Order: sequence, then C-alpha cells, then structure tokens
Amino acid sequence: MNNSEDRRVAVLLTRIRDRKPLIHHITNTVTMNDSANIILALGALPVMAHAIEEVEEMVGLAGALVLNIGTLDSRHVESMLRAGKRANALGIPIVLDPVGAGATRFRTQSALWLLSELRIAVVRGNAAEMAALVGVAGETRGVESISVAGDRESLARRVAQELKCVAAITGVHDIITDGKRIARVDNGDPLLASITGSGCMSTSLVGAFLAVEPDAWYAATAGLVMMGLAGQLAASKASGPGTFRAHLFDAIAMMDEQAIIQGQKVSVT
Amino acid sequence: MNNSEDRRVAVLLTRIRDRKPLIHHITNTVTMNDSANIILALGALPVMAHAIEEVEEMVGLAGALVLNIGTLDSRHVESMLRAGKRANALGIPIVLDPVGAGATRFRTQSALWLLSELRIAVVRGNAAEMAALVGVAGETRGVESISVAGDRESLARRVAQELKCVAAITGVHDIITDGKRIARVDNGDPLLASITGSGCMSTSLVGAFLAVEPDAWYAATAGLVMMGLAGQLAASKASGPGTFRAHLFDAIAMMDEQAIIQGQKVSVT
Amino acid sequence: MNNSEDRRVAVLLTRIRDRKPLIHHITNTVTMNDSANIILALGALPVMAHAIEEVEEMVGLAGALVLNIGTLDSRHVESMLRAGKRANALGIPIVLDPVGAGATRFRTQSALWLLSELRIAVVRGNAAEMAALVGVAGETRGVESISVAGDRESLARRVAQELKCVAAITGVHDIITDGKRIARVDNGDPLLASITGSGCMSTSLVGAFLAVEPDAWYAATAGLVMMGLAGQLAASKASGPGTFRAHLFDAIAMMDEQAIIQGQKVSVT
Repeated sequence: MNNSEDRRVAVLLTRIRDRKPLIHHITNTVTMNDSANIILALGALPVMAHAIEEVEEMVGLAGALVLNIGTLDSRHVESMLRAGKRANALGIPIVLDPVGAGATRFRTQSALWLLSELRIAVVRGNAAEMAALVGVAGETRGVESISVAGDRESLARRVAQELKCVAAITGVHDIITDGKRIARVDNGDPLLASITGSGCMSTSLVGAFLAVEPDAWYAATAGLVMMGLAGQLAASKASGPGTFRAHLFDAIAMMDEQAIIQGQKVSVT
Repeated sequence: MNNSEDRRVAVLLTRIRDRKPLIHHITNTVTMNDSANIILALGALPVMAHAIEEVEEMVGLAGALVLNIGTLDSRHVESMLRAGKRANALGIPIVLDPVGAGATRFRTQSALWLLSELRIAVVRGNAAEMAALVGVAGETRGVESISVAGDRESLARRVAQELKCVAAITGVHDIITDGKRIARVDNGDPLLASITGSGCMSTSLVGAFLAVEPDAWYAATAGLVMMGLAGQLAASKASGPGTFRAHLFDAIAMMDEQAIIQGQKVSVT
Repeated sequence: MNNSEDRRVAVLLTRIRDRKPLIHHITNTVTMNDSANIILALGALPVMAHAIEEVEEMVGLAGALVLNIGTLDSRHVESMLRAGKRANALGIPIVLDPVGAGATRFRTQSALWLLSELRIAVVRGNAAEMAALVGVAGETRGVESISVAGDRESLARRVAQELKCVAAITGVHDIITDGKRIARVDNGDPLLASITGSGCMSTSLVGAFLAVEPDAWYAATAGLVMMGLAGQLAASKASGPGTFRAHLFDAIAMMDEQAIIQGQKVSVT
C-alpha cells in the first residue's frame, strides 16, 4: 500500500466498532466459539445460525455472511445455499472458507458447488485448499496444507480468475488478489499454526471487514492484517499455544490505529 | 436482601459443592464447552445430551434441566420437549434461555412453544429477547440486545406474569422477578459483554442453583450474583476478553462465603 | 517400566512430531475444540469429520481414528461404523471413548455395539464407564464416575479380556492393561477433574500415540503419561480451572525428552 493508504485499515476498524455489523456464520462446530469470540473482540456482533427455518431471515439482518465447511454435512449445504441466495439478492457480501477442500471429494465438491451457485466475494483458504478448487496438485493432510506445486501468487491469481472472486491464501505470508491487484501481508507468527481455528477466525475477520468495505480485495487484506498483527502481539505474551490463544483475543480487542499503522506489513503489486 | 439473608447465596454455593447435582443441558454448539466448564468450576456436574433416544433417561438423573435455543434446529426442539415433559413429571426444575428470540420468527416461536408446552421455572435472557416473548418492541441484532422500549422492571414483571415463570433479565444490571418480588443485582463488569457465552453461562449457573433451592426466584438471583461477582474478580486480572475468559472460570472456582458476602450487590423490593 | 525403557515415551513423542500423523476424530461437540488443540499442541494434525459422505475417505488419510460418543446421536453411530470398518480394513488403529456409558442405555448400547462391530485397539474411560461395559455395578452421574465396586486393576483386566482390547481406566491413577501386562500411571493433578474434556483429550492423545506405536498397550500408556505430566506442569502455573486449561496446551507443546524422563511415573506388573 502506498503512503496515502497507511491509515486505511485503521479507519475500517473504527468503522466496524462504530457500526457493529452483525456477522452471520454458518460454520463448523470445532471453531465456532473462537469465531464468535474474535468477532466480539473486534467490536462487531456474531451470530451462528444454521437452521433451515431461519437462515434466510437471519442473513437479512447481517452485514456479511460467513460460510465455512469445516464440519459440513448435507443438511448444512442446503442451509448455506438458502442463506447465500438471500444474501446475494440483498447485496450482502459472502466469504467462503473451504476447510479441507482437497482432503475429501465431499469437501471439494461442496465448496465448488457453493461457488457455482452463489456469488462469493472472497474465498479464504490455505494453499492446498485453494489448489484443490482449481485442480492444481497439492498435498493436504486433513485440513492442513502440506505443500503445493507452483508459487502462491500464480495460484491465487488463478483462483480469482477462474472462480471470479477475491482469493485470499494464508500461510507464512498471505496473498490476496482479485485477479489483477495483488496484496502480500507479511504479518503473523508461527504460533498461529499451533492452534485450531486460526484460519476460521481469519475468515470471520474478513467477513467483518466486508461488512464495512465494498472493495472485497481491500476488506480481505484488512482482515488478514488484523489477524497477523494480533498473532504477533499475542505471541509476545504467550508461553505456548494455550496462553497464545487467550492473548489473541486480547490483542484483537486492544488493537488501535497506532498499533496498526506501525505494525502492518502490506505490499501491493 | 435484608441482613438476615446475607449468607443465603453462600449457603447455596456450599450446598451445590456438597451435593454435586447433575445439570442436564440441551444447548447450543457455540457455548456448550463454556457451560460445561462453568458448571464444573462451580462444583456441580454438567452433562450435555440431546439425542432423542436418551434425553428422558438422562434428565431423570439430573437436579435441573437447562434448555438453550442458541443453535436450535427442529430435531432439538423435539428433544427439548421430551426432556422437559419428563422433567415436569419428576418435579425437576427447568431454566430456559431464549437465545436470539426476536431475531427470527423461528427462535421466538420455538421459545414460546416450549413455554406453552412445559412448566418452566425461570426464563433468563437479555432485554430484547424477553421483550420478544411478550410482544414488546425491542431491537435485537442477532443474539445481542440493542434497545428495548420501556423500563426493565416493568418488562420483567410482564414476562413473569404472562408466562407464569420467574423472569431474569440480564444486562448492565440484572432484574429478577416472580411477578411479585423483584431483585436487582448490580454485580458484573463490561468485559462480560465482550465474550460469547456470558448469557448462556449465567443460565447454566441459574440451573445449578435451581437444583438446590426450591424458590426459583431466589435461585435465579443467586446464579446471577455468582456470575456478576465472578466477572468482577476476573476483570481485575484480565488484559482483555481472552484472558478474562480464563480468569472467569478461576473466579467461579475460587468463590467462597467471604467473597460473596462482601461482594454481592442485591436489592430486593 | 524398567530402566531400559526410560526413553520410550520420549522417543514416541519425537516420532509424532516428525511424522505429524493425521488423527481423525468423530467426536462430541462439547470438547472437539479441546481435542483438536491438544493434538496440534502435541505436534500431530487433527481432523474432525463426521459426514457420512466423507468419513471413509477421510479415515484413509489418517494414522488413527478416535471415536467418542459424548454427544452421540443415531446419525453419528452410522458414521462411526463406516469409518471404523474402513479403518479396520486398512489396519488403522481405533481408540474408543465411551463417554457416559452406564448413564443411559443408549450410550452403553452404542458403545457395546461399536465394540462388537469393530476391532477397537484401545478403550479409554473412567471407572464407571468401563464398569458399565462389562456389567459391573458402578455409579455414574452423567458423564462423571462416582464410584465402582471392586478394584480398578481387576476391572481393567476384565474389560480387556471380555472386549478383546486394551483397557485404559483413568482417574486418580491410571490403569492400562491388555489383559496380561498392567501399567499404572501415577502422573496427574486434581485440576484435570475440574475442566471438561480431560478425558476426551486423553483419548485423543492415545490416538496420536497409536499412530506411531504398534503396541496398543504401550501407546495408551504413553498417551496417559503425556496427559498426566502436562496436567502437573499446568497446575504449577494455574490459579484455577480456566488458567489451568490454557497452560495445559502450553505444557503439551513444551514437553520434551528431559521433562518426560524426569517426570514419568509408570510402573509395570
């Protein structure tokens, strides 16, 4: 980002805290508590609702919809589709987390089906998950990315262009692209990989920024800056993954303009 | 509470720790881990069981039943009804948490249906949820209460009288009424609103006190005193919502007679 | 364990960290976040997947399968059966956690049915749960063991012999037997009983050791040594159950050869 944009992430954070958008999640049972807590720590309002009877009504109240296939079963696919159609009709942005795509056919196909049926603003995943969505060879172990052929920028660009969305690949560094603009985020800490839910929480943060920023590429970048920076701050106070996790929520809640401007490591090409 | 009642909450806490009642929860997947942990920290025993095949048998072992509609779907409504009918037949008290009532018709109607089919001892909710149950205008955003018309005491009294139960409204201060007696609890800390599950855990604590105190109005008051006091103690050691949450369980576990008597802020009218 | 075996648990831990086996869980919604986090802290990779559409494919990627009936319903029984059959066909070891067996007929029968249909390497439970599996009188309160008739060694031996698996009974001390060899682990701390998920996390750790150690009796022993030692280390830094839980994950992540060799309290008869 050029100098004139130094304050942009911080401005969006203030906007979230002022507007307190509702972030509707249809997500997995492993990390839904973490996602709810990080949205609250950020200053927005989470709601987890998956019942077919209410998802369309609930999403109508929301600023963004987060779809996460981490513990998907067939009932949830239908709820995701209904909520997503309604979100599309209302112009509410959707972020998709294709957890474990590539590990099983069910996950890959469910993610691709949601991408084909819905207009998704952002897909946030690790390299192996993203590779699976476009048929590139990658090695997944369960929901963890092990290795992927080729460089991450090319992969991200291909995902964005083929799936017509913003692609946000997280890892040692993060790549975010809409197919043309590419942002690279170098914030983060290895401890983020030592807890479950880092990816899911990143996706939730992207959802919160989507609720206040129409440029989905920028919203995704801002969400990942926030997660990376919080990870760095939490790591400095932690003695391992358990205490790190507690401090991660503190760091999100304490984040302010100065911490963001001084700490953000974003380069745009 | 008058002076002769100063020790009453503390006495109930000792009773819980002596008897270790089983608190059967049919609750949401977002905060069920928190509810289980707070019940253990208090000194009672939690069990989460929702399968239609076992809920009637399980509730027969319990001292109280907690029903929480936070991530309700149609299968759980049936389990709640069966467990509740059995609890009513056995004289086991029920506390209902109408999470998100008012946000969607499904939630409002499910809560009202449970209230019509079952004898509920206590309903514990925020102001907007409680308003939705009696058709009073309120603004909910997902599962968070934003604003409600009228004063909270009148609302609580109306809920209690119309729904024939104890109404416990939590917020900056808590109001508990059986339609005649009104208790106001001024314990608590703003950090309680910064984590998910504060409301659900409050409801679980009310359940634990119901298991040892036949006066449901008093049990609900005691549960909310406990939560508010623990929130204050935890806040004094926390640097944000993540560390607050860890200290909250410590505070419940460390709570003793002296801390309660010195810290409780209850007024009865 | 005799002196020549002093390093054996430590060697297995190194093996886990080198190989990073995937540990497939079909488990309960109360503690699945804890199980995922402890597997990551240990150095292995967790995946939680229960959909009938994918469990057979997912287990094929795994080093071990963890079946836990904590919030079982009928759909999950079928998923467990399919995943288990596939695991058996592929020679992937299974550990079963019969949470709440004895509390309801549904739980006891589901656990016994899985034991009859699948080749289970290890069953890990508390004394009351294990007693229920072989029809010995025991008192369960929900999912907590209150008391059991007879001594724990005899009970463990009976479970192992009748159910043809390794029986691992956890409690104040742990007993692990394959029906012939008996290990007793005296590590642990009372705070482990003050949080939910201690049992489930122990079972998950056993799963991780099963993935790298063909002798199921030894793998179960190693898993329980790891949990007990981590509990001791965490307790030394905790002020109650909430901070204990955070430090528990730190302790697992920090565990090294020296800590294990100096701290392990295992006797074999």
